[in-house]
Amino acid sequence: MMLNLASRAYDRRWRIDPIVRSLLDTDFYKLLMLQMIWKHHADVPVTFSLINRSTDVRLAEIIERRELEAQLDHVRSLALTNQERIWLAGNTFYGTEGIFQPDFLAWLKTLRLPEYELRILDGQYELRFSGPWSQVMLWEIYAVTIVNTLRNRAGLARLSELELDVLYSRAKTRLWEKLDRLAEAGVTGIADFSTRRRGDFLFQEWAVLAAQDRLGAAFNGTSNVSLAQKHGIEAIGTNAHELPMVLTALADTDEEMRSAQYRVLDQWQQMYQGRLLVFLPDTYGSTQFLEEAPDWVADWTGLRVDSKDPFEAGEEAIRWWQARGRDPREKLVLFSDALDLDDILALDRAFRGRCRLGFGWGTLFANDFRGCHPRHRDDLNPLSLVCKITEVRGRPAVKLSDNIAKPTGPETEITRYRRLFGDAGAAFRPIVA
Amino acid sequence: MMLNLASRAYDRRWRIDPIVRSLLDTDFYKLLMLQMIWKHHADVPVTFSLINRSTDVRLAEIIERRELEAQLDHVRSLALTNQERIWLAGNTFYGTEGIFQPDFLAWLKTLRLPEYELRILDGQYELRFSGPWSQVMLWEIYAVTIVNTLRNRAGLARLSELELDVLYSRAKTRLWEKLDRLAEAGVTGIADFSTRRRGDFLFQEWAVLAAQDRLGAAFNGTSNVSLAQKHGIEAIGTNAHELPMVLTALADTDEEMRSAQYRVLDQWQQMYQGRLLVFLPDTYGSTQFLEEAPDWVADWTGLRVDSKDPFEAGEEAIRWWQARGRDPREKLVLFSDALDLDDILALDRAFRGRCRLGFGWGTLFANDFRGCHPRHRDDLNPLSLVCKITEVRGRPAVKLSDNIAKPTGPETEITRYRRLFGDAGAAFRPIVA
Repeated sequence: MMLNLASRAYDRRWRIDPIVRSLLDTDFYKLLMLQMIWKHHADVPVTFSLINRSTDVRLAEIIERRELEAQLDHVRSLALTNQERIWLAGNTFYGTEGIFQPDFLAWLKTLRLPEYELRILDGQYELRFSGPWSQVMLWEIYAVTIVNTLRNRAGLARLSELELDVLYSRAKTRLWEKLDRLAEAGVTGIADFSTRRRGDFLFQEWAVLAAQDRLGAAFNGTSNVSLAQKHGIEAIGTNAHELPMVLTALADTDEEMRSAQYRVLDQWQQMYQGRLLVFLPDTYGSTQFLEEAPDWVADWTGLRVDSKDPFEAGEEAIRWWQARGRDPREKLVLFSDALDLDDILALDRAFRGRCRLGFGWGTLFANDFRGCHPRHRDDLNPLSLVCKITEVRGRPAVKLSDNIAKPTGPETEITRYRRLFGDAGAAFRPIVA
Repeated sequence: MMLNLASRAYDRRWRIDPIVRSLLDTDFYKLLMLQMIWKHHADVPVTFSLINRSTDVRLAEIIERRELEAQLDHVRSLALTNQERIWLAGNTFYGTEGIFQPDFLAWLKTLRLPEYELRILDGQYELRFSGPWSQVMLWEIYAVTIVNTLRNRAGLARLSELELDVLYSRAKTRLWEKLDRLAEAGVTGIADFSTRRRGDFLFQEWAVLAAQDRLGAAFNGTSNVSLAQKHGIEAIGTNAHELPMVLTALADTDEEMRSAQYRVLDQWQQMYQGRLLVFLPDTYGSTQFLEEAPDWVADWTGLRVDSKDPFEAGEEAIRWWQARGRDPREKLVLFSDALDLDDILALDRAFRGRCRLGFGWGTLFANDFRGCHPRHRDDLNPLSLVCKITEVRGRPAVKLSDNIAKPTGPETEITRYRRLFGDAGAAFRPIVA
């Protein structure tokens, strides 16, 4: 067989194998949020910080600093391409054309990601991104994805070619068995939410194509914008904690702080309609959120469950819609926290027919290599790695969530927020990934 | 990425994807037998015939005649290469150099396979190879391999690229689990005997490399000469039924017929020594073979168990060596009929320490796709396909075996042979593959 000498010589020139190759290799909700931030809060100074909750995994001893810098620098060299801008402008998202405004896309085309700050402390990387909210917020997904993938690559580098083949064969076999089980149980509303926690881009791509093939219309789409574009799949996602976290941190009075979580939604519904109206109630506790919510919130399409026990959260949502005089069967409950096959099957059994169901499947969709290692090492098991807003205009940003084990922010601020929002419905849940 | 336009244009020219690409893509024992046949029986006119025992699989409706002819014709275009001849001459087999004589290799270099006869009868291919024994005998493995592979390709052609990936992932995962189990149980003496029944060449290659990686020294080698050459692995195998079948058919008296099975071994030990002295007693029933055997047969290294219940066969062999005053712990029992993981584990438990053990693992080593099909079809399940000597100098060739379900030859001849050899120790066993 003749080699392509030109290709070989060209390939040898690559200094790195880039992990993030497009600004669209991110979650769709980041773009939706970015448009709103760009419109209303473009210049608010914020800081995102990487937090490794799996503290026993000493990332700075696994990942070389030079490698990490090279990958982050590569992201800074990326810009939206013409093809990507035209696709964002012309594609239909959630059944609606023209979701992204031309002036937003024109601005996005000019966006380059700002500098990062990188330090090593106690075996961990301290990685921070500071700047105007609209300019730094995309860093979140790229940073988590890069660190996760570099850590996986370090584990993969210990395997022979044959062992890698066994590893991927096992992981693919396992995912296919999961899809088989979901298809046989008739579960619908499955979506890929794995981007930042995927094994790597190509395995996420495989997982998405496998899900589309095996589940058909029961697979709703992917949160990954690049994959949605490349394969003509629905892009999925709405909004996340950073919106209420920033607006609450910016508030000057207790009253403003308590109402910021609804002000976010009001701004959202001025920009988006229909199926994009899905709220995330758990930033400061879902129970207080629902109790205090203005009635128009109950008109929204549905809610996303993230940090609460999902069975309790589903029951609470159904009771709340009923109490507000809405029919829960027309409402969407989107489960999204650390789901695996058995959770999805059990939630489907518990709620099918009582509300509309969605399952945002992440780590254990496209990064379930547990027990797949041919030499039984655990260095490919998922990490619990996040990149969160930690500062807003010099003030600390806080998230309480429904899980007592999962708040972010300085201890004194967490106490202050807990006093303000209460802790109704909060409970301890172990963190999976 | 730039394409290699020259390679692409060249690739497009291939009319077929050849299944057999080298005369060494055969079982090692065929070459050992061929050297003896070339020396003593080169010109005996024989006929080999393909027999599909899986009569419910109508091969002529699955495989296109043109495809089959193209593959068979391709084999006729093959000749031993210089590199192959030099390797056969210089390599050490079973610890011995120069097993193949220079004049044999010089003759082998000139060998081209003769014509075949192909007809379709009742949905099956009638495929026959007639000519001097030394010229046609290699057809056996190529013919079975080609028909098996074409039948598999027909099944694979129904699958999407993703489904193929799932299929192979599952098959690889399964084989690796089997290897894991064998390694954990400390089983030794495993060898690949899958050539003619492999999924295809590349999967056999994967299986051999995986076994070598996972089992280390517990993997003895492969029967496939091409793979042994390519990867520097031991080539494994000694002799098969065709030798006693031909010599018995050539015999003119009952006495000569009964002794032919030992005359074969006498010719063998004039040519080969040491670890190559492994006999196959079951052509006309193992029990009569052992009872009537000259004492020097008990000096041989061991025996191969093929058609008898392997536990009974092992016990019988041990009793026989003891009765002949030999220590069974120094003797090899090589199991080789339709083995799978559980058989190997059970046989190892039953015989370890009582004799030396070998396991010639075939179909279910490199062709276990049962239940791996993503759409649950069974068109990749193994066939029971053989290519046997059917005629010798105008006389029918007969094999009785220890399995009443497995004789080959015309009914009247089988009756005659049964009268001559008896049926001591024969039993019914279902045919797996």
